[in-house]
Amino acid sequence: MKKSLGAKTIIYPTPVLIVGTYDAAGKPNVMTAAWGSICCSSPPCVAVALRKATYTHGNIVLQGGFTISIPSEQHVSYADYLGMVSGKKTDKFAATALTPIKSNLVNAPYIKEFPFVLECKLIQQIELGLHTQFIGEILDIKADKGVLDQNGQLDIEKVKPILYAPEANRYFGIGTFLGNAFSIGQNVKKKS
Amino acid sequence: MKKSLGAKTIIYPTPVLIVGTYDAAGKPNVMTAAWGSICCSSPPCVAVALRKATYTHGNIVLQGGFTISIPSEQHVSYADYLGMVSGKKTDKFAATALTPIKSNLVNAPYIKEFPFVLECKLIQQIELGLHTQFIGEILDIKADKGVLDQNGQLDIEKVKPILYAPEANRYFGIGTFLGNAFSIGQNVKKKS
Repeated sequence: MKKSLGAKTIIYPTPVLIVGTYDAAGKPNVMTAAWGSICCSSPPCVAVALRKATYTHGNIVLQGGFTISIPSEQHVSYADYLGMVSGKKTDKFAATALTPIKSNLVNAPYIKEFPFVLECKLIQQIELGLHTQFIGEILDIKADKGVLDQNGQLDIEKVKPILYAPEANRYFGIGTFLGNAFSIGQNVKKKS
Repeated sequence: MKKSLGAKTIIYPTPVLIVGTYDAAGKPNVMTAAWGSICCSSPPCVAVALRKATYTHGNIVLQGGFTISIPSEQHVSYADYLGMVSGKKTDKFAATALTPIKSNLVNAPYIKEFPFVLECKLIQQIELGLHTQFIGEILDIKADKGVLDQNGQLDIEKVKPILYAPEANRYFGIGTFLGNAFSIGQNVKKKS
């Protein structure tokens, strides 16, 4: 019998998403968020939930757009740092070796050094409680050539993304290949 | 310079969420979803996006609740199968060795064999396009004792969750521990 743990906010795995915005003065800012995912295939949309107290929250409302940069394992200290300080008080690009690049599709910056980025136009803002969920239509994904496979598609084993374990507050890399989707389930299917 | 890949629905990592519901006749159903995440800390909420064509979509609207079971690596074939067939035509529990357990908090079943489950009360339904996003308030998490650490908290290294790479349609396990959150970023912070 399963043991009750109470009403916690845990699913595994949780991503590490770096949300890029400009403030009213045009200062680029980036913050780390774990509460987010793809949320619609057509139109292609991503959801990211932020506390109203964050600098990024106001920036997204102001600019109507944002980016999501995906870090690699080698960037884990940067990803952690970007979630520890507020853009209200700190210029996080000036404080690190990271470089902001302005998106050509939305008024928001992304991180040059991270392997790929989603450029997102704000289409819905949903108030849930402590967090506001921003729905962004994905206008483009841009990626470094070094993380693409021979067919020009993103290769997760080259990206080496970070995953996050909530509550325990631990970061992990990705591990062993387990199988192909819409394929290995055939074995179960045949038994039925 | 980054290369444009077009408007794709890719973030890494994406979770593998098994959504449990009852239909109007009380038949338990489970389906696999990858578009979902925690979306609010207070109240604790999870978002999961489903196509309107799925059997689960109608069941959630009907019952006002659902569960999310998280599979382990050893369940990867089952997780894949549960996303390949529709509960409209198939009794997926009868077709597999999996066992439905009725939640004591919402009118929805979860999978006994999977290591932990979120029990969710539907609080919002947001139409985004091809997908509807269901927001569930997490009323409880229940877990097998074998996936808890010495403090009674969920241990991701014991759960061994599955992660999914969209587009490439590949499943992976979790890998190396990279560091503690709100901690390893201190190194970057000190440089500023």
